[in-house]
Amino acid sequence: MADSLVFVSDFEMFKVARKNSVRAFILTDKLHQECKEFYSSDLSVWSTSSIHLAMANLLFLFDLKAQYTLHEIHPKAFVAPTAKIGKNVSIGAGAFIGDHAIIGDNTIIHPLVSIGAFCSVGTNCVVASNTTIGSDGFGFFTDKTGTHHKIPQIGNVIIEDNCEIGANCAIDRATLTSTKIGKGTKLDNHCHIAHNVEIGENSIIAAGFIVAGSTKIGKNFMASGSVHVLGHLEIADNVIMTARSGTLKSITAPGMYGGYPLESHKESVKTHVTIPQIKSLRIQVNRILKHLNLKEGQ
Amino acid sequence: MADSLVFVSDFEMFKVARKNSVRAFILTDKLHQECKEFYSSDLSVWSTSSIHLAMANLLFLFDLKAQYTLHEIHPKAFVAPTAKIGKNVSIGAGAFIGDHAIIGDNTIIHPLVSIGAFCSVGTNCVVASNTTIGSDGFGFFTDKTGTHHKIPQIGNVIIEDNCEIGANCAIDRATLTSTKIGKGTKLDNHCHIAHNVEIGENSIIAAGFIVAGSTKIGKNFMASGSVHVLGHLEIADNVIMTARSGTLKSITAPGMYGGYPLESHKESVKTHVTIPQIKSLRIQVNRILKHLNLKEGQ
Amino acid sequence: MADSLVFVSDFEMFKVARKNSVRAFILTDKLHQECKEFYSSDLSVWSTSSIHLAMANLLFLFDLKAQYTLHEIHPKAFVAPTAKIGKNVSIGAGAFIGDHAIIGDNTIIHPLVSIGAFCSVGTNCVVASNTTIGSDGFGFFTDKTGTHHKIPQIGNVIIEDNCEIGANCAIDRATLTSTKIGKGTKLDNHCHIAHNVEIGENSIIAAGFIVAGSTKIGKNFMASGSVHVLGHLEIADNVIMTARSGTLKSITAPGMYGGYPLESHKESVKTHVTIPQIKSLRIQVNRILKHLNLKEGQ
Repeated sequence: MADSLVFVSDFEMFKVARKNSVRAFILTDKLHQECKEFYSSDLSVWSTSSIHLAMANLLFLFDLKAQYTLHEIHPKAFVAPTAKIGKNVSIGAGAFIGDHAIIGDNTIIHPLVSIGAFCSVGTNCVVASNTTIGSDGFGFFTDKTGTHHKIPQIGNVIIEDNCEIGANCAIDRATLTSTKIGKGTKLDNHCHIAHNVEIGENSIIAAGFIVAGSTKIGKNFMASGSVHVLGHLEIADNVIMTARSGTLKSITAPGMYGGYPLESHKESVKTHVTIPQIKSLRIQVNRILKHLNLKEGQ
Repeated sequence: MADSLVFVSDFEMFKVARKNSVRAFILTDKLHQECKEFYSSDLSVWSTSSIHLAMANLLFLFDLKAQYTLHEIHPKAFVAPTAKIGKNVSIGAGAFIGDHAIIGDNTIIHPLVSIGAFCSVGTNCVVASNTTIGSDGFGFFTDKTGTHHKIPQIGNVIIEDNCEIGANCAIDRATLTSTKIGKGTKLDNHCHIAHNVEIGENSIIAAGFIVAGSTKIGKNFMASGSVHVLGHLEIADNVIMTARSGTLKSITAPGMYGGYPLESHKESVKTHVTIPQIKSLRIQVNRILKHLNLKEGQ
Repeated sequence: MADSLVFVSDFEMFKVARKNSVRAFILTDKLHQECKEFYSSDLSVWSTSSIHLAMANLLFLFDLKAQYTLHEIHPKAFVAPTAKIGKNVSIGAGAFIGDHAIIGDNTIIHPLVSIGAFCSVGTNCVVASNTTIGSDGFGFFTDKTGTHHKIPQIGNVIIEDNCEIGANCAIDRATLTSTKIGKGTKLDNHCHIAHNVEIGENSIIAAGFIVAGSTKIGKNFMASGSVHVLGHLEIADNVIMTARSGTLKSITAPGMYGGYPLESHKESVKTHVTIPQIKSLRIQVNRILKHLNLKEGQ
């Protein structure tokens, strides 16, 4: 531990690290004031307004795997001759870049990503392994015999600049136009973005998100894990959806929402904790009915 | 816009398109009657009983990416020498086709699909990128010490003709026999089909579907997003399950169902909207108990 | 059928198989006693304390696809020169093994798996197709303008010995340390394991499992399908979570749990079946309020 740089956010962690002979610390400005009297001359200490800010700014210096990022097209990748690849792009082993696809400068496409024909990924993006961008939207015409006929999906996917797309995601191309991921938006693993969806800029969406076709989501959207949004809805800017929430209706006002059906976050928490009480509620209601000599079911 | 062909389904869209100098329209027979008086001699108009039918029939003419479909095996794919590949098959870059696998005529296997040994995909099928067909079923024998021993999964997967399998799906091979997807069935992205499952023909299943092992699903099944079905069940023909519904029991009658626990669609909608009222129900019940001088919990 | 070996677990199956001229049986010790009087001299019968145990021990003999497992690195795989690959390892077509990754002896990496730099997989493991091990954890610092800055994820993933990881899973690397899957643990398809998570040994987790960052799960954990666990929790040893359950809180005692919010399994079953009664509860409560001349909402 003596040669470690340690991020500490509370005094206990600081003490444990000192016991383990750590001599280089990054701590919050607040903690820095509290710890000062315990500093000794062999310590190196940096303080920051936010540990996460410090991590965002410093950890790349210690990212040993970064040196293996190619900044070139891996010989085991396939890039269509008609694709337009920017400067300083990394395309990992096994990745597929379809015809007329566009990859912006400084973007990292990890191994085994599939980016379909005519789709585009902006500059400074990251797309993690086994993600599919530009699969056909799920559109069928069902005739009177119940047979489903594929509606060709001739649109594309546009991922704007500074986006991060997690592993094993699927983003379908639009039927006629474009499925869009706004600039600066981050998707975690296993997200499903259906055809014609638009997600606004600066959104941050945790794993297992499913949004059905044609929904337009505003900017600064935040979704915790396993959030589901029906198709053909509009979600306002600055909406937060808590874990496992889902909506069948548009959301017209900014704010924090939860539950299924969706309520304000505050109400959804109350509903959540009350649900197990349904059993005792039923017992009490039956008892009252009996007490009042009211027959059930009338 | 002047050189666009526009699908319109209501009068407002027609007006907007006309303002933008669109001169080629496809519209419904009904709308065609309403719009007739606004036609001028520079317009080309086709009418149809269904916009989606027209899309299914016409859009392939405008599908620029279709020309890049190889109708051959991409040099960066791997096809086992013992696999049987039909005529006019496309196998994309990075796709893997295992030993003794069978791919029917006119089928498109997109890049980075894995089709395991002995599995078969019928004619006129599409399998989207990063999908796994023929992964081992999840079967273990747990001994008295709690150690889990793998049960070899020696069956296969059979996907019948005219199926579409979305991106990032996983369809496990059966333990001894076959996991089956019936002809004409369409799966959206991120579907999980466990070992020994059978899904009837002409089914249409949206994203995030999870069905556990050995369940038999009838034909013409429809599932909206994020539907879950337990293992070892039987689902009748012509069943519809609405978004986010789930069932722990077999479904013996055709019809539309929703919710978790599953109810008829009509009842499930009522349950859904009533759930947030549980908070006020509790308050009212407590008030009644107090009014009647009944102690709680008796 | 005459040349089949049949596993039978009840008397009806035995009779059907006999009618179909099956002559080789594996049956439970109990059934063996019941069937004895129906045996004839042309039958071969083995009995076992558990059909699943017999399957685990015998089916590999009939696993025709096993002969196509390479026990070598497929020429269409990519293995970084700095990776350490054990003895008797199979690495399938299109698989990617990053720099300084470690793969233990006798491990099978199926086609199109991505194992990132510095990650390790133990001995006797299986990783199914299209799974991603070592994608970046989902960590961002959001500044006052709402812009999200990536926190480099410089840790790794450690998968211990005897693990099985299903198809299309994603296991993120830790921010600084290691995401860990304990020895003997089995994950089904479409599982998402976030950064810094630790899952104890001998766990068995069905499809669609999502666990958020930094949660520590004890050993012998069992999860049925579509279970969700929030981040920064601790789950005790020997916990079972039933299908579709989820928890926002740590679980401190062993046992079987279900529902959302999570309750004991017994209570969760009661809650589950009572939920549809919420509609009649509301009607009864309104009726009582009217009967008592109590106005609603006071």
